[in-house]
Amino acid sequence: MDRRSFLRTSALGGTAAAATTLAAPAYATGKRTLTMVTSWGRGLAGVFDAAQHVADNITTMSDGELTVDIKAAGELVGAFEVFDAVSSGQADMYHAADYYFTGQHPGYQYFTAAPFGMTPQELVNWYYHGEGMGLHDELGQIFGLKSFIAGNTGPQAGGWFHKEINGPEDFNGLKFRMPGLGGKALGKLGASVQNIPGSEVYQALSSGAIDGTEWIGPWADEKAGFQEITKTYYTSGFHEPGAALSLATNRDVFDSLSPAHQKIIEVASGDTHQWNLAQFMNNNGAALQRLQSGGVKTLEFPDSVWDAFGKASKDTLDEFMDDELFAKIRNSVETSMKSSSSWLTKSEGAYRAQRDRVLG
Amino acid sequence: MDRRSFLRTSALGGTAAAATTLAAPAYATGKRTLTMVTSWGRGLAGVFDAAQHVADNITTMSDGELTVDIKAAGELVGAFEVFDAVSSGQADMYHAADYYFTGQHPGYQYFTAAPFGMTPQELVNWYYHGEGMGLHDELGQIFGLKSFIAGNTGPQAGGWFHKEINGPEDFNGLKFRMPGLGGKALGKLGASVQNIPGSEVYQALSSGAIDGTEWIGPWADEKAGFQEITKTYYTSGFHEPGAALSLATNRDVFDSLSPAHQKIIEVASGDTHQWNLAQFMNNNGAALQRLQSGGVKTLEFPDSVWDAFGKASKDTLDEFMDDELFAKIRNSVETSMKSSSSWLTKSEGAYRAQRDRVLG
Repeated sequence: MDRRSFLRTSALGGTAAAATTLAAPAYATGKRTLTMVTSWGRGLAGVFDAAQHVADNITTMSDGELTVDIKAAGELVGAFEVFDAVSSGQADMYHAADYYFTGQHPGYQYFTAAPFGMTPQELVNWYYHGEGMGLHDELGQIFGLKSFIAGNTGPQAGGWFHKEINGPEDFNGLKFRMPGLGGKALGKLGASVQNIPGSEVYQALSSGAIDGTEWIGPWADEKAGFQEITKTYYTSGFHEPGAALSLATNRDVFDSLSPAHQKIIEVASGDTHQWNLAQFMNNNGAALQRLQSGGVKTLEFPDSVWDAFGKASKDTLDEFMDDELFAKIRNSVETSMKSSSSWLTKSEGAYRAQRDRVLG
Repeated sequence: MDRRSFLRTSALGGTAAAATTLAAPAYATGKRTLTMVTSWGRGLAGVFDAAQHVADNITTMSDGELTVDIKAAGELVGAFEVFDAVSSGQADMYHAADYYFTGQHPGYQYFTAAPFGMTPQELVNWYYHGEGMGLHDELGQIFGLKSFIAGNTGPQAGGWFHKEINGPEDFNGLKFRMPGLGGKALGKLGASVQNIPGSEVYQALSSGAIDGTEWIGPWADEKAGFQEITKTYYTSGFHEPGAALSLATNRDVFDSLSPAHQKIIEVASGDTHQWNLAQFMNNNGAALQRLQSGGVKTLEFPDSVWDAFGKASKDTLDEFMDDELFAKIRNSVETSMKSSSSWLTKSEGAYRAQRDRVLG
């Protein structure tokens, strides 16, 4: 079915339904329910929380004129079908990580996280005060979406290993779970990269079917229970240095909303990005202390491994440069990142290093 | 005048005014203008932008049912009179940096920045997912305010000096401009701390009346023109590692608003904190590059100076520990900061260091 005609029908249906509530005051005829499909299991810590937070705030701020009805993965469509569902008008909005949709366009990688890419602060600098939001919109126009970042897991951990990593050669033949472009980069080091569904990772690591896995960070990793299997935990990773989540609304639906409601969706998304990032970062701090108390050994990859990660990441990203919009987004990201990073290193980075040293 | 009776009068006046617009639909009788006084000169880059951003978003999201009318410093009350103006009900809201109001209560220091205190990410971790917002509210209850953080300048620079600093003894007798508790700490190193109004700092540094000054960061410092006077710039500072701004609403006014409008003020504030921090951090990166291209030498204080900053900061904060609420806030901040910092250092800190090293 044609997307626009489907939507027109849907909108008419909405008006008819509202008209039956005769007692409502005149302005309430605009009341509508927006169906939000998500890539998350219901109640999944952190990511579903972000979807719930943005949905609740839209509903409350609009005084119920917009009611966001959240669907967990599988309730209306599958986790990775949310993009097409909203693009086609089957659902009104999705909450997901946009790098699930690099099959639709590789440029979406940069609106979650790219290997050796931006940290969360660098991302918001670029998104709100550089070209980021405009480029997200340019992608959205192709697919009939109006997208905003609306959540962030923070920098993801390097992962859990059965054996320590002493050089890039230790990845050769290593059976490791890592999805996305990070996994593709790791494959260039000779790793046998496994894409195992989340629900099966614990069992695979436990049985030795895989030699290691990355997951999210201490809070989520502790919930997954990997510390029961191995105590070797690399805390810093190259693959997702700040994984943003997005709220995307069907563009015809978005365009049909009042300026007030459009702004409510935009501002609720921005607020949720910060709120959710703070949630992960706050809980990661507490979980890290518990993991360490429980005997987990936190490690960093040696420089030679980081060098190899850097080269592999570059080679992986280079493979998409034939796509003009991907190239435009990547160049924009890398220029902005360099500029942001220069000040972050000299200010916050230097301050935190000194404070940690002085306070011990 | 009693605050509550003043407010009741004021609210009646507002309703009367709205009733004269006869053609408006029924729900518009709730329309009201909220007067926001600020500590900022009209159009002052960054800080006034934050006030404008949060005001505009409240107005737009409420579909004009709330119209925020911004007053620059001096237009209704002076820059530092905004707290008492809102507490007494003379104005509805203020936008300011809460550490201007340590005279009202020393605990307000922690809702902007404390020497050797939290970075912006550590602050939002504590504010939204620790005890921060609740403690801000506990302070607000004393003064009849409902407060939210709503802006952030990011970590402030160490400052501009006529001569390089090689040890803590170089601060002995140094005439340096630094306001607040940072300045008080610097005084413990023997500095002659000057509190010069912003408009006079350039002239004072230029004439040699002061030996150095801190200001904000590269973006604002470049606008102030300090690079025309000296090329010696310390980029990292101890005194304000992430200076938050706040939006405070008179509590009776806030309580009289609908849940939708209350949530609009809360969410607009959160979004503005992130948006404004990104504005400063993005523009600081670009300005730093321009300053360096123009011959400015960026430096870091040696470890011995940081050690002295650390001791002086602790001694300064210790002086307020007789106040029970101050002590409660400080202990909460320091516990949360330690936990947040542990993960930030191991994840983002380690990642950024490696990325900078690998990418060069």
